[in-house]
Amino acid sequence: MSKVFVNIGLSLDGYMAPEGMTMGKPEYKNWGAKWGAMMGWLVKQKHFRENLKFGPGGDTGPVNDLVKRTMERIGANIMGKRMFDQGEVAWPEEAPFHTPVYVLTHTKREPWVRPGGTTFYFVNDGPERALELARKSAGGRDVRISGGADVIQQYLNLNLVDELEIALAPVLFCGGRRLFENVREPGPKFGIDKVLAGPDATHLRYVRQ
Amino acid sequence: MSKVFVNIGLSLDGYMAPEGMTMGKPEYKNWGAKWGAMMGWLVKQKHFRENLKFGPGGDTGPVNDLVKRTMERIGANIMGKRMFDQGEVAWPEEAPFHTPVYVLTHTKREPWVRPGGTTFYFVNDGPERALELARKSAGGRDVRISGGADVIQQYLNLNLVDELEIALAPVLFCGGRRLFENVREPGPKFGIDKVLAGPDATHLRYVRQ
Repeated sequence: MSKVFVNIGLSLDGYMAPEGMTMGKPEYKNWGAKWGAMMGWLVKQKHFRENLKFGPGGDTGPVNDLVKRTMERIGANIMGKRMFDQGEVAWPEEAPFHTPVYVLTHTKREPWVRPGGTTFYFVNDGPERALELARKSAGGRDVRISGGADVIQQYLNLNLVDELEIALAPVLFCGGRRLFENVREPGPKFGIDKVLAGPDATHLRYVRQ
Repeated sequence: MSKVFVNIGLSLDGYMAPEGMTMGKPEYKNWGAKWGAMMGWLVKQKHFRENLKFGPGGDTGPVNDLVKRTMERIGANIMGKRMFDQGEVAWPEEAPFHTPVYVLTHTKREPWVRPGGTTFYFVNDGPERALELARKSAGGRDVRISGGADVIQQYLNLNLVDELEIALAPVLFCGGRRLFENVREPGPKFGIDKVLAGPDATHLRYVRQ
């Protein structure tokens, strides 16, 4: 069966998003610079640059291989409404998913088909139903819980996350949206699977035990 | 000049201590088991076992070497009153520091000399004064900010931490004392220095930039 995984960038102080990120322009509370400092390692990778049509060049080392393997394994994405709302105005016309994307929301809306293979489906029946749909459409590939933090927390609380992949960057946000918040006791159990020490982030991979 | 460093165990969700740790016996909110799961890697190491007279045996690999180097570099420790109060009743007669220890407190108290080279000094004049005294007594070796979280946060906010060493264990505490809380903008700047991937914890070393 396809795996359910999380793959995110995290600040050293545990934030997925700096304060102000959902509130306005990149200058607001300096969130753009903070986000850039956390995700700088990704923007350098050849595979990521190709996927977002950032132009030629980019790193081709083990971090790039990791990014490529991660992208290729995804058969469907699940995300929250806030992440979708931000992306709807920020993603390019060809949204960078190239899979079905299930958006957890209370809003009813028809599927939104984008060029390049991304279709957004709006699911009103909760995270378990979204996962059921995502699995069906993933065609044997894996399901990524894309974010935001609150959606990842819902799946952690349902103990449905098989693999947790964190790119831990040495930046302090000093505020924002924490990845680990509202996770209820006893919490899921993870073990260390792999560590890849990149120059700008440490790539930590945990699997459910 | 001697370096100021932090070397701590951290849960994957960012806690230095599980909820309830300062409140009672290890059964309380299961904090003893949680703490044990986070620090299990350390208790296995030969050098740590020798230092605490836990008996013979123990791992002798790269993690043990790391523990040994860390212990040997410490010329003085600084800790908060809460950590001291807990330790005062829990440490063995020969407290496991073997250096001067500066305790940040409002309480006035004469130095407390323990067998084995540990003397606790009670400093009433704040973290900068404690560091000044610690540096003087460290004899060229380094000063460790031992904890708790609030004391580490004070030194982070003063931008006095040269090196941040974190043993990140794949356990979720779901509550407790967070390492990164109350750190004020813009926060200190760290870069990745070294990563040692142990089987039970990932040893992350950051240096101030």
